[in-house]
Amino acid sequence: MNDLLIANGNVLTVSPDGARADVLRRYDVLVRGQRIEAVQPAGRIDRSHFRTIIDATDKVVMPGFVNCHAHTPMVLFRGLAEDVSIDRWFNEFIWPLENNLTAEDVYWGMLLGAAEMIRAGITTVADHYFHMDRGGEAIDQIGMRGVLGWAMFSSLGKPALDQTDTFIREWHGAANGRITTIVAPHAPYTCDDDFLMAAGRIARRHGVPVHIHAAEVIAQTEASLAKRGITPIEILEQTGVLLPGTIIAHACGVTPDDVERMASAGVGVATAPKTYLKLGMDITPVRDLRAVGIPVGLATDGVVSNNTLDLWEAMRLTAMLQKDRALDPEVLTIPEALAIATHESAKVVGLGGKVGAVAAGYLADLIVVDTSGLHHQPLHSITASLVYSAMASDVVHTIIDGKVVMRDRRILTIDVDDVIANVSHQNRRLAQRVPGQRIQTYHP
Amino acid sequence: MNDLLIANGNVLTVSPDGARADVLRRYDVLVRGQRIEAVQPAGRIDRSHFRTIIDATDKVVMPGFVNCHAHTPMVLFRGLAEDVSIDRWFNEFIWPLENNLTAEDVYWGMLLGAAEMIRAGITTVADHYFHMDRGGEAIDQIGMRGVLGWAMFSSLGKPALDQTDTFIREWHGAANGRITTIVAPHAPYTCDDDFLMAAGRIARRHGVPVHIHAAEVIAQTEASLAKRGITPIEILEQTGVLLPGTIIAHACGVTPDDVERMASAGVGVATAPKTYLKLGMDITPVRDLRAVGIPVGLATDGVVSNNTLDLWEAMRLTAMLQKDRALDPEVLTIPEALAIATHESAKVVGLGGKVGAVAAGYLADLIVVDTSGLHHQPLHSITASLVYSAMASDVVHTIIDGKVVMRDRRILTIDVDDVIANVSHQNRRLAQRVPGQRIQTYHP
Repeated sequence: MNDLLIANGNVLTVSPDGARADVLRRYDVLVRGQRIEAVQPAGRIDRSHFRTIIDATDKVVMPGFVNCHAHTPMVLFRGLAEDVSIDRWFNEFIWPLENNLTAEDVYWGMLLGAAEMIRAGITTVADHYFHMDRGGEAIDQIGMRGVLGWAMFSSLGKPALDQTDTFIREWHGAANGRITTIVAPHAPYTCDDDFLMAAGRIARRHGVPVHIHAAEVIAQTEASLAKRGITPIEILEQTGVLLPGTIIAHACGVTPDDVERMASAGVGVATAPKTYLKLGMDITPVRDLRAVGIPVGLATDGVVSNNTLDLWEAMRLTAMLQKDRALDPEVLTIPEALAIATHESAKVVGLGGKVGAVAAGYLADLIVVDTSGLHHQPLHSITASLVYSAMASDVVHTIIDGKVVMRDRRILTIDVDDVIANVSHQNRRLAQRVPGQRIQTYHP
Repeated sequence: MNDLLIANGNVLTVSPDGARADVLRRYDVLVRGQRIEAVQPAGRIDRSHFRTIIDATDKVVMPGFVNCHAHTPMVLFRGLAEDVSIDRWFNEFIWPLENNLTAEDVYWGMLLGAAEMIRAGITTVADHYFHMDRGGEAIDQIGMRGVLGWAMFSSLGKPALDQTDTFIREWHGAANGRITTIVAPHAPYTCDDDFLMAAGRIARRHGVPVHIHAAEVIAQTEASLAKRGITPIEILEQTGVLLPGTIIAHACGVTPDDVERMASAGVGVATAPKTYLKLGMDITPVRDLRAVGIPVGLATDGVVSNNTLDLWEAMRLTAMLQKDRALDPEVLTIPEALAIATHESAKVVGLGGKVGAVAAGYLADLIVVDTSGLHHQPLHSITASLVYSAMASDVVHTIIDGKVVMRDRRILTIDVDDVIANVSHQNRRLAQRVPGQRIQTYHP
């Protein structure tokens, strides 16, 4: 007996190179255990063979989104740092706010944010934050896939490195393989070279890559060049953290030489376009990176800059901002946007060929999307609708690792109301900024 | 007996200058006939005095959005012109597609698009399209507020001018005042000077302003200067269509002198940021316009460029693109974005001081927004959530002209399923492009 049948849906297929995106109309998706067993025309198989059946008639079945760079527990601070410059954002808001943060908060924040992501059709998150052991518990409990890194700053010293070492030993491969780990130094402007080298050594010892912010804006690259004569990406290269599979968050301020370095090293880039617009930053040179084979994945960043954990919006903005910067609407087409959202995002977090496609052998990380809403009507083009019309609220079912985690928009693995109540109870304390105690000062 | 009580909501208040946006917690909104009678702390009035009660506990009560520039019936072509340059978009897609269009199509397209707008919290639309008499029927029937203009091109000659004249006589003030009219020549690059002058005369004769596309991109302004030595805005001025209250769609390519001209004339500008990004256009210089007192209103344009009729997205993009272009996250703040979405959008379509505020004496064009979704949690800042987290699907009730048009997301005035069925039945025909018959060729 099979485990799960997603019956009679319109199945999205995207070529990895972004040349084509199509829809197989009225197809069944058969799931056994964690994996997709077959994708075939509907009606060929007897429904009584399945424990669970999801009717996807007139709905789209597509890969769940992969969030390539998030600080999920920062949902706790949603809406608390608005309309401020990037240095005020760090120095007067984020870091003073984070001084309030307890391990318990991270657990609840991760649960709340993961629930928001599952509701929005995100099935994997590459998270970069503090108290990641408690974050891991939350990811395990809610049933999401996670590539988790415990954020480290030089100012936290050797205990932070040891903590990461322990975290990787305890959590890599946890939750039946749903959770993997990554080494997560914050950035070259908050971690000195010795610290980065030590981080790189931990990564190589465990055979995991690194997840780090770098070249977030051109000004950071210019400051680095002025101060040290090398770019942030060169610092990463020289300190040994530019490993194959390393995730570079943002990379908006990379030079052409940096792009070559990154391509040679085999890293991926996470792009969070809403953050760039909101914070008046530069944007990731997505087309330049992809032109030399660097995979680009979608990201929400934290909600203190992005406000929601919504990769539909990130997908749309990624495509639109490339058109905008090129003043050319013919670049970054709908199939390319969908390839970025699926195959490439998976590759960025080390899950290339494992998630990101509705195909036999892939892990069953799938979402079912309702295209009956008025914002899709009339439905001339499903692929256009997915990129330019769909909303997070169109996701009706979310399947992760073969398990139905959300059905009819109800999350089945945790009590969401309880999570909201627990978090809201802490609102007053969490909204207090504790200045003078921040982890660093932002002056790259 | 009063007509409608919207009880115990969080009422959004925005100062017209955008300096402040606040929330009155637990307030009642009393509606009598078309108008808001009072806004007062909840519980002061006996609920039994009201025919209809909407419980807005823990929800936001705010003005409905005003869509300052749309071609609503183009929903019929949603998703049919993607990833193409602006000249291909006009010449190979839009105009050949529109050759299929019948008056009957416009009626159904307007109904479908109006339903999408009401679902997204839009209560007024300034529409610019063909067969606007049938469009007016649809707007009347669904219960929306409309400022309607029948699109005219030089190529259509004097009959088009006469048609507009008749349309204004028959429709201005229709539907109990919900429908007003406007003169709608397409653009200075599709209407010659004599035609624009004739349009201006009709407008002055009827005492209505003009709604026209102008300076959509810098290239249009440059082409106009090269060809005639004057800008598109100067053409409008010289032909007498730059009237007080005239709506200029886009104005992305205006010169500093144009901005002065527009301010002196007393026109407003409609901005449709998603269209600009998708078509790789320039963007409206929103801050420059507002600095000299030109009101800027939000717009969706047609869905063939914008894909959805969603002003939440337009509000967010308007704010973010100003931050982006200025490389300064402190500009175009949340209160300013809300002022643009409310007071200023109302002013652009000639409804300043009539709609756009939840205040006694204003027309009761109101929406009730659910902020309980996970993408709002925890709710530290309602105003931040409205600008950066809210989705069209968060709108639960829509009230227009004192009438509940949508309740619990169900539209009460028309049969939406019937509209979808009628439209979808025509999909194949509508998707056919009829080249060689287009109304114009785009070569500004």
